Amino acid sequence: MEAYLDNSATTRCCDEAVEMMRRVLSQDYGNPSSMHAKGVDAENFMKDAQKKIAKTLRCKEQEICFTSGGTESNNLAILGVAEANRRTGRHIITSSVEHPSVRQTVRWLSEQGCEVTYLPVNAYGEILLDDLRNALRPDTVLVTLMHVNNEIGALEPVAEAGRIVHENNPKTIFHVDAIQSYGKFPIFPGRMGIDLLSVSGHKIHGPKGSGFLYVKDKAKIAPLLHGGGQQRGLRSGTENVPAIAGLGVAAELAYKNLEDNANHMYEMRERLIEGVLGIEGVSVNGRQGREAAPHIVSVSVDGVRAEVLLHALEDRGIYVSAGSACSSNRPEVSATLTAIGLRKDLLDSTVRLSLCEATTAEEIDYTVAALGELIPMLRRYKRS
Amino acid sequence: MEAYLDNSATTRCCDEAVEMMRRVLSQDYGNPSSMHAKGVDAENFMKDAQKKIAKTLRCKEQEICFTSGGTESNNLAILGVAEANRRTGRHIITSSVEHPSVRQTVRWLSEQGCEVTYLPVNAYGEILLDDLRNALRPDTVLVTLMHVNNEIGALEPVAEAGRIVHENNPKTIFHVDAIQSYGKFPIFPGRMGIDLLSVSGHKIHGPKGSGFLYVKDKAKIAPLLHGGGQQRGLRSGTENVPAIAGLGVAAELAYKNLEDNANHMYEMRERLIEGVLGIEGVSVNGRQGREAAPHIVSVSVDGVRAEVLLHALEDRGIYVSAGSACSSNRPEVSATLTAIGLRKDLLDSTVRLSLCEATTAEEIDYTVAALGELIPMLRRYKRS
Repeated sequence: MEAYLDNSATTRCCDEAVEMMRRVLSQDYGNPSSMHAKGVDAENFMKDAQKKIAKTLRCKEQEICFTSGGTESNNLAILGVAEANRRTGRHIITSSVEHPSVRQTVRWLSEQGCEVTYLPVNAYGEILLDDLRNALRPDTVLVTLMHVNNEIGALEPVAEAGRIVHENNPKTIFHVDAIQSYGKFPIFPGRMGIDLLSVSGHKIHGPKGSGFLYVKDKAKIAPLLHGGGQQRGLRSGTENVPAIAGLGVAAELAYKNLEDNANHMYEMRERLIEGVLGIEGVSVNGRQGREAAPHIVSVSVDGVRAEVLLHALEDRGIYVSAGSACSSNRPEVSATLTAIGLRKDLLDSTVRLSLCEATTAEEIDYTVAALGELIPMLRRYKRS
Repeated sequence: MEAYLDNSATTRCCDEAVEMMRRVLSQDYGNPSSMHAKGVDAENFMKDAQKKIAKTLRCKEQEICFTSGGTESNNLAILGVAEANRRTGRHIITSSVEHPSVRQTVRWLSEQGCEVTYLPVNAYGEILLDDLRNALRPDTVLVTLMHVNNEIGALEPVAEAGRIVHENNPKTIFHVDAIQSYGKFPIFPGRMGIDLLSVSGHKIHGPKGSGFLYVKDKAKIAPLLHGGGQQRGLRSGTENVPAIAGLGVAAELAYKNLEDNANHMYEMRERLIEGVLGIEGVSVNGRQGREAAPHIVSVSVDGVRAEVLLHALEDRGIYVSAGSACSSNRPEVSATLTAIGLRKDLLDSTVRLSLCEATTAEEIDYTVAALGELIPMLRRYKRS
């Protein structure tokens, strides 16, 4: 049996998106910048994808700017706001549990002279709104927060944060990294006070190399890539039409059965949590139930190194992640696990299991059984 | 009949690359950063593509850094060098006929305080090496030149330029935009003194959204995208494995029959040039024969607007480009045509026809015949 429980690292591209890509790559391969019919056809694939995505966010089609993925979306949002608003202010607020594509980008800006406030989190990985209130300053140009934490599934209060940010200063730009939440939750940037929103395609069964940044009509933001002026000057470069078309298909599918899928994943998540908590010396990080994301389970295992457990599970066809697997192979100490105050000896003994809507009860039970067998065995081999 | 003569805007993705992508998207969909077997498999697809590409350039595999395409490669090269060498110098040399993804990036740097020297070109669109010699300064950090001009097919003397640049100062970085030349010419960065080389996948029958920057082992360059530290820190973000694998396939194919393909394209190009020169009031820009690229023909038509001709050709299933079609729909006056001193009234009356190795003599003859009929007809409708 096989259980792929690393869906927060990447998902299988759905057949509908693959078929769309095949068609665009082979037949409708024009360059959207070309003035002839093949160019217009290509442009229409893009517009159609924008339409599909705009519908899921209840925003305008032209507010969707396609990128090469989540990392570029986050970089474009953060660097783009800092660059375009240089004269307004240099203060940025973020949290201490952001993904590296936010954390490292903000860190780079701090090296360039920006001032950064890092909001702490509680034991569940959630920021506190009072901390945000206290951090806001007249020269705060950007607040950047994730919606769902990629390591433990914590759900950040982004709608409330959006209200607070704009009550304090309507000009402060509020960016949300929704890479782990888009396709799992309804997200309406207009209603939630979100000015910029990052999404990645390959986390929602869309193609790798696809993603977008929602850019509110009036948000002031500078481009990252210079060139032919595509996408209204915000992202130069021939648009990746096959991937964009595939992303549109995947986004539409993700929101078609959103509630049913979420319910199913919550059920599977609960089943998994209940199962692993029955194993001695195992704890689960973050909240349970509906106050967390439906698809991420962070499991700490007393006395077993994550990497060892990962490979033992792999031998049984079970694929999980040690840490977040969103950064490259070199493992580093998890910022999230540190920020929630996890016991030091567990930092290196925590695995992430991440589900998708296709995850079955059989896979969960198979995984729980494997963990139940492997963990006591591996503990015996533990280096003291 | 249909004749797609806009291959310099974009090419049809070859079946071999599409099939490879389908496989990676559907089956081998792991994240290369994951530590388990599915991650290792994904990483191997990348390594295999690096190997294939390195073979075409006779370089090391780790010198290939994958990007989202040509525009990102050019931006990474130019901004990356400027950023990493800020303290060494602020002088940049480029030509007056570069693609917007170079021109606009350099322009942006000049707004940030860099000093830029623009080399002029002769009537064929070629820089003169003496101009380069005279422009080099002790504080020149970057020389960035294209190999093949995207509008008229001019072949720039990059190997000689590389020698001159490094004789003057071994630390000056030499970047070549090879987006229109890779797959058409043998390119050996080591022998040609090239430190950085930009390539785009979709110009060589590979997927859109793919490309790479060759980065010589010791070239000092800063990343553009911050995050998980993928690709040895030079390009963060989950690698677009399906597109990378597809690019590897396309690159291998392009170099498999390089000489035969080039010979065929040169033959077709000559046939096309000969044909159009037989039409009254038609001229061809740039050099003929082996001193230009094999696939680009720039045709100026007295008294007929390019856009009108483009649409008339389109009605007959012939797809060409007005200007370069590398920038977004908004047409702007061509920098290249201006730089070669084209008569002002022809700037707006120039179309580009661009071939690929699959272009047939029948397509060329069909196109020449259509032009022969359409041009006199359209001239009669000309607004004076």
